[in-house]
Amino acid sequence: MNKATNITLKQAAEFFIGHDNFLILSHANPDGDTEGCAYGLCGALQRLGKKARLACSDPLSERFSYMKEAVEKQQFDESFVVSVDVADRSLLGDLEKLYGDKVDLAIDHHISHRPFAERVYVDDSAAAACEIIYDLIKLLEAECLDEKIAKCLYTGIATDTGCFKFGNTTRHTHLKAGELMEYGFDAAALNYVLFDMKTKARIGLERYVFENIEFFAEDKGAVIALSKEILDSVDAEDVNGISALPRQIQGVEVGIVLKEKEEGWKASLRSNSVNVQEICGHFGGGGHIRAAGCTIKAADAEEAKRLIKEEVTKVVEKLLN
Amino acid sequence: MNKATNITLKQAAEFFIGHDNFLILSHANPDGDTEGCAYGLCGALQRLGKKARLACSDPLSERFSYMKEAVEKQQFDESFVVSVDVADRSLLGDLEKLYGDKVDLAIDHHISHRPFAERVYVDDSAAAACEIIYDLIKLLEAECLDEKIAKCLYTGIATDTGCFKFGNTTRHTHLKAGELMEYGFDAAALNYVLFDMKTKARIGLERYVFENIEFFAEDKGAVIALSKEILDSVDAEDVNGISALPRQIQGVEVGIVLKEKEEGWKASLRSNSVNVQEICGHFGGGGHIRAAGCTIKAADAEEAKRLIKEEVTKVVEKLLN
Repeated sequence: MNKATNITLKQAAEFFIGHDNFLILSHANPDGDTEGCAYGLCGALQRLGKKARLACSDPLSERFSYMKEAVEKQQFDESFVVSVDVADRSLLGDLEKLYGDKVDLAIDHHISHRPFAERVYVDDSAAAACEIIYDLIKLLEAECLDEKIAKCLYTGIATDTGCFKFGNTTRHTHLKAGELMEYGFDAAALNYVLFDMKTKARIGLERYVFENIEFFAEDKGAVIALSKEILDSVDAEDVNGISALPRQIQGVEVGIVLKEKEEGWKASLRSNSVNVQEICGHFGGGGHIRAAGCTIKAADAEEAKRLIKEEVTKVVEKLLN
Repeated sequence: MNKATNITLKQAAEFFIGHDNFLILSHANPDGDTEGCAYGLCGALQRLGKKARLACSDPLSERFSYMKEAVEKQQFDESFVVSVDVADRSLLGDLEKLYGDKVDLAIDHHISHRPFAERVYVDDSAAAACEIIYDLIKLLEAECLDEKIAKCLYTGIATDTGCFKFGNTTRHTHLKAGELMEYGFDAAALNYVLFDMKTKARIGLERYVFENIEFFAEDKGAVIALSKEILDSVDAEDVNGISALPRQIQGVEVGIVLKEKEEGWKASLRSNSVNVQEICGHFGGGGHIRAAGCTIKAADAEEAKRLIKEEVTKVVEKLLN
């Protein structure tokens, strides 16, 4: 592994000003934050007169397609590789083999960041990595921000904070979102698409979740397992954010959604009060304190549920005593 | 009617500094904004050493009960009457008779404000009246803001903007919300209760809505009728915001929720594109352009649905052509 050097945001800005031909990597199964960072930073560097392009192991989600407007397609051989919102090289997915040990600068906001790049800038007080990218772009020499870039960065901040609802939201988060709105994109229309609009398939999936959810640990825990068959019956988009549903039920302290994948049952844990990062650590996973994930090797849904319920119950029981 | 004098916010602050014994009125069927204003302002005036108390035609909703912590109960004969977030004297409800022509100062943010007070301060660029009250409190002589007051004011801002999602949200809205958060209340826990938490009864009601919703006008319209029996099976709180659900379905331009009441079927219309105020006007109702309501006299749910679908179809067909 590289010996990572921690740098300041000013040094990160100088890195971009002093170099050229950037490849920007976002994490696998990309969300609004990693894509917002990648498209926003790429667009800003292009406006600065630099060459910049993007790579991700998975395609851009349809609902973020507007981000493409912030950048132009450029073809060139990269000289420098940058990762955004990537907490661990393994999260590069299929791109890890190619770039895992070739990242020149990693910019991230995960407290669980495991250094893999030559230079690293991590600010875990940022609710979204897009907050950092916004500050970074302001440090670049020229005015590189426009409406399209602002929309990318706002997307990352809004999606990572549940539209300013979650505990990671700070005064700075609000301040930056407000400043980004001034660039003139229609934030209300964007928020409707990001947070309110549901497809009929999505509504069907939510019904399935609430019809089949299981409560445990004196109703402080709630778990639902989604089989491959169920997941395949809807678009990937429709599954987005489904992990938040069990925790929304009054009284539930830990909500768990299990999804059947090739490699096992992918668990997403959400809590209002419990350190779910620690629970996921038992299964080799990680994430944030109130939102974390792991993969559970199990013969079937019943076994996967049993294993995760055991660990959650231990922690919730401590909470009850 | 009084001849209302428009005053500045500074003059409003001077009004409070120079007088004493205030009665603060909020509007009937109170929401988070009018209550946040009333409790926040009352608490601040009390910290300034003034006597202040509250009145509203309806009780404080259970979910805002924490606001009571911001004020102490004081008994006195009022010398001055102030209304907050009240767009028209008729919206004082049962208190109109007593105070409708006795309001010394009205503070409001509705563009539709119809002056009824002696002095009036209206800023329709404010997403919530709580934004104004926050600025006003900052103009008072002493530091009158604390965690409990900040929580009241944040509540008004968050609820009136759908947690910063709606088009009324501005840079100033974000800025003020961020500043208020600094007073230290747990915004995430508050937002969870205000926006995310669902009782099991609420989840059952949502399932009922989505199982029984009817689409019409080439799926651009969606309607659900909730009988008295269904409505009585849940708490009033659980029905809160249910009117927004049909419109959330992708492709639906007009969403309609019908509720069976003594006086007929109460229709709530929501749209992203259509003037539903006009549609509701046909039935003697009104409201905002994208959110309006009316009462439909009909023998049963089927007739009520038929009548409203007819009017909506006419308008939606125009949209399709």
